Amino acid sequence: MSPPDGPEARRPVTPWGEPPGGARWVLAVDIGGTNLKVGVVPVAGGQPLGLRVEPTRPEEGADAVADRVRRMAQEARDEVLAAAGGGGDGVGSLTGVGIGSPGPLHRREGIVVSTPNLGWSDYPIRDRVAGPLGLPAALDNDANCAVLGEWWMGAGRGARVLLGYTLGTGVGGGIVLDGRIHHGVSDVAGELGHATINHRGRVCGCGNRGCLEAYCSGTNIAARAVEELRDGASSSVRDLVEGDLSRVTAATISEAAVAGDSFAVDFLARSARLLAVGVANAINVLNPDCIVIAGGVTGAGEHLFAPLREEVERRAFRSAYEACRLLPAELPETAGVIGAAAMFLQAQRDGEAHGGEAAAVT
Amino acid sequence: MSPPDGPEARRPVTPWGEPPGGARWVLAVDIGGTNLKVGVVPVAGGQPLGLRVEPTRPEEGADAVADRVRRMAQEARDEVLAAAGGGGDGVGSLTGVGIGSPGPLHRREGIVVSTPNLGWSDYPIRDRVAGPLGLPAALDNDANCAVLGEWWMGAGRGARVLLGYTLGTGVGGGIVLDGRIHHGVSDVAGELGHATINHRGRVCGCGNRGCLEAYCSGTNIAARAVEELRDGASSSVRDLVEGDLSRVTAATISEAAVAGDSFAVDFLARSARLLAVGVANAINVLNPDCIVIAGGVTGAGEHLFAPLREEVERRAFRSAYEACRLLPAELPETAGVIGAAAMFLQAQRDGEAHGGEAAAVT
Repeated sequence: MSPPDGPEARRPVTPWGEPPGGARWVLAVDIGGTNLKVGVVPVAGGQPLGLRVEPTRPEEGADAVADRVRRMAQEARDEVLAAAGGGGDGVGSLTGVGIGSPGPLHRREGIVVSTPNLGWSDYPIRDRVAGPLGLPAALDNDANCAVLGEWWMGAGRGARVLLGYTLGTGVGGGIVLDGRIHHGVSDVAGELGHATINHRGRVCGCGNRGCLEAYCSGTNIAARAVEELRDGASSSVRDLVEGDLSRVTAATISEAAVAGDSFAVDFLARSARLLAVGVANAINVLNPDCIVIAGGVTGAGEHLFAPLREEVERRAFRSAYEACRLLPAELPETAGVIGAAAMFLQAQRDGEAHGGEAAAVT
Repeated sequence: MSPPDGPEARRPVTPWGEPPGGARWVLAVDIGGTNLKVGVVPVAGGQPLGLRVEPTRPEEGADAVADRVRRMAQEARDEVLAAAGGGGDGVGSLTGVGIGSPGPLHRREGIVVSTPNLGWSDYPIRDRVAGPLGLPAALDNDANCAVLGEWWMGAGRGARVLLGYTLGTGVGGGIVLDGRIHHGVSDVAGELGHATINHRGRVCGCGNRGCLEAYCSGTNIAARAVEELRDGASSSVRDLVEGDLSRVTAATISEAAVAGDSFAVDFLARSARLLAVGVANAINVLNPDCIVIAGGVTGAGEHLFAPLREEVERRAFRSAYEACRLLPAELPETAGVIGAAAMFLQAQRDGEAHGGEAAAVT
């Protein structure tokens, strides 16, 4: 099908209907423990324009980080509007701001309740970033946004029941049902990383024992590998970090596995089987058609996915396993930004976006 | 608010809108491993009329059981219609048949794929029961029906995100989101009993290791208690079963706990803490406002619920724990029948009920 000509050609079409005033873009922010990312996402779909990435530097404090995010957003906005030229493409072309942040958070109040990686506590990130921009805004959990991004434009396109895992500093999780983020009744839902796989297991950062995250976050994959390397396991991982085991990350293990290192291959297979316990649980409970897995460790490809599928098949109900595709993320770098935009469009449609009255009038 | 007078007084109102033709009742069937239950449930809500309960006797074979269910349904129908008298209250007053059965099953085809407790395999239970009755019908998982029944008229009334556990022969589970059963993409969703709580744990009937069911089904609670009693634990449970440990059930343990037996109290507390691992997982993933627990063991009351709440609080995210009521079922005997009726009304509204064209025309 060729794209339509004439006035229809520029009509944005989203799964969430057309935003008010025929706006063309969403400003989207992805706040991570490591990086801040800001971009301008076309309402009609597509990669973010004017993308900016900076290290988060949480040690600077919440206000400094928030102000930097706002400046990045202003720059991205100005760059995209300038490139679009005059001809009516003013600020009204931006329909609002979507912000993804680590949680837990009060979504409707726009407040981050606490986030150990950033050191924030009851911080009103939404209004601090979007208030000065004069645009409506919505805040959601970063992992929820990443999964919604994969649903809109990534590996989970069209899935009816989509689950996502992000193996990073922690294990982020999100649930998208028929294109909607499942928030639960107090905005905590989707914490797939905090399902217990071993009730007497490793202590997790959340205070529980034996959470999936305690084994399979990028951080804990690296920590568990380093434990075994310190115990004397032979591996080329040591060479990759020039003997400095403190530099080992999950991506280092993946790199070694891809290069054929037998310790790394075996270690990743064991990690995949632990991940499979959590994945099989989620499959038996939610019966999804797609699960998307993101994080540096997915660079190991089949070294991770083959044992993962094998162990999930062993553990889950057959018809639930067979109904579910297990895929690496397609948008590892931009799912958070794209999903923050999608989340805003959904919140706007549902009357859950907040503020920006001046802009909303245009 | 007093009930309306006049013609409105008899107008049924359900969360699923009014059934076609102003029908007043649903024939509802709950097929269990132990008992068959059939009743006539008022569309306007209320306890089943003409309730019939018979032992299942699966050894008689699928056809014999199905034919008995059909006869029970005919008797219940005739009794209720006769009591209602003439005056236009004919068969058209029945809008259809809802059937809850152990699964897995092909819901839309009305087929039970397999059910170890009944010994059925690819059995077309829906058409076998409802076909001769000339009524539209719908089939669903018995545990899903029980949770929907508690949502409609029991402990889960009005919950936005409701989870249910039935600790019986197995651990049945169900998820009701905004009043709808979450079926997943291949009708397997809601298997909360088959979430792993210990990845190297007891072998479960489903083939996995360490499922919640392997510890906390009524059957396995009894089996674990008997293991400890055979190992010499001192307890009044022995007296309750006159020394015959093969007669111990979860209800026996509950009875002993309520009577103050310290082995039973301690054993139930440990069982509750295992149940809590699965419950905390589900709370972190789905963030429900209510969880309803059914099964003979709930007769132990606070001997079960106090340690359950304590351990869930320890394991789950605080704001998710605080948002969730943990309650015993209010309809332990009839939730399956009431929920089968509710399930039919929902399927009928959604265009998913099947057959009964002759009746549907009236």
